[in-house]
Amino acid sequence: MLNNGERIDQLYAEDIQIIQSSEVFSFSLDAVLLANFPRIPKRGKIVDLCAGNGAVGLFISKKTAASIDQIELQPRLADMGRRSIQLNQLDQQMTMHTLDLKDTFSQFKPDSTDLVVCNPPYFKELPTSRKNPNPYLAAARHEIHATLEDVIATSSRLLKMNGHFAIVHRPDRFLEIIDCLRYYQIAPKRIQFVYPKDDKEANILLIEGIKHGKNEGLRFLSPLITYDAQGNYTKPVEEMLYGRN
Amino acid sequence: MLNNGERIDQLYAEDIQIIQSSEVFSFSLDAVLLANFPRIPKRGKIVDLCAGNGAVGLFISKKTAASIDQIELQPRLADMGRRSIQLNQLDQQMTMHTLDLKDTFSQFKPDSTDLVVCNPPYFKELPTSRKNPNPYLAAARHEIHATLEDVIATSSRLLKMNGHFAIVHRPDRFLEIIDCLRYYQIAPKRIQFVYPKDDKEANILLIEGIKHGKNEGLRFLSPLITYDAQGNYTKPVEEMLYGRN
Repeated sequence: MLNNGERIDQLYAEDIQIIQSSEVFSFSLDAVLLANFPRIPKRGKIVDLCAGNGAVGLFISKKTAASIDQIELQPRLADMGRRSIQLNQLDQQMTMHTLDLKDTFSQFKPDSTDLVVCNPPYFKELPTSRKNPNPYLAAARHEIHATLEDVIATSSRLLKMNGHFAIVHRPDRFLEIIDCLRYYQIAPKRIQFVYPKDDKEANILLIEGIKHGKNEGLRFLSPLITYDAQGNYTKPVEEMLYGRN
Repeated sequence: MLNNGERIDQLYAEDIQIIQSSEVFSFSLDAVLLANFPRIPKRGKIVDLCAGNGAVGLFISKKTAASIDQIELQPRLADMGRRSIQLNQLDQQMTMHTLDLKDTFSQFKPDSTDLVVCNPPYFKELPTSRKNPNPYLAAARHEIHATLEDVIATSSRLLKMNGHFAIVHRPDRFLEIIDCLRYYQIAPKRIQFVYPKDDKEANILLIEGIKHGKNEGLRFLSPLITYDAQGNYTKPVEEMLYGRN
């Protein structure tokens, strides 16, 4: 089941095993935060865009009976995700598609999805940006194959009226995300900032929006702090990783 | 020095006395938060819009040698502010103008100001909004005499190139504020959310922008929590009110 250089990690809170490889991609806290952020529909259709090795969709799977379709461009990552689906016996619920985001509607119907989740590349693809020489990691971190606008335009088209969209990103892209969401008819509704410590600036941003939602009632959820003063995970983050004790 | 129903309150942290009246208007924590939020220029010109009884300008005065001009429409509030300026012997530095925001440029020059601070009315003036029957309090809380757009348009025109603007407001008006700032050429640069407790949604928003600033490098400052689990002020807020012990 495992190829060279791969290992099996566990997300204890959700009792999920996930095949990882440090050569290619490993999920980060951001995927766990995203999986815990939106209201997950109990049934219907969920799509996980820029799925990588499948972490976000896998972490969501235990919270819902909805089908979860995952879209990932890189065959090696998609293959790892597919084997993780088998490993967790989630074949009935989950499907990994090796697919370019731009070809989404060759396999998916518009206006069909209840929730789209996305943990996209964070960094702009600029000639000056210092990219990782490893092409797998570069594609996961830089907007080489899909820009923020590609992701949001595709998500909007996938979503039903009143379907939800949730994204994790960097706070310095905040205005661009907000503008792009509204351009593609997704009204921002819930925003949460994540701070590495309680006296540090935000380093992670979570946004949930509703397609064709009203441009009113935007809420900023309680701050999520990653580490306490001693450098240990805070209780809310520890629970996302290890469950409630 | 005091009229009927007035009292003198003290902001210990700044050693400022302020004339207040619960019949008309009393400053709230929001004014203290705003006074502590932007970088205060050491000299030059500061304007305090929607000044009320003058709290924000008074609280800033000890941090700078800049002149501070305050603009307030309601004569009774402006008069209280003028007497507080005398009470604190700040006549050389501060001036209270009884003036409609819309007439600002009858007395002020455009492109003249280094910092504009504003604690405006928070609530839209709508036929359905339940206004305070007290006209002083209604005008302080509802956009009866000046809208958010009036405030931001006036601020932008007052500011020099690269001058700073700081506002305190409600998080549910966030998108409107951000859009209006950018429309009037003020780039949002520093944002801080204030949460009543560490597990509650944000209830106060602080935004600082720069006129003709670049639309890059937006930062979200560490979360400011008002009360601890026991309902006492947290240390950062206590220091703003009572100073460092």
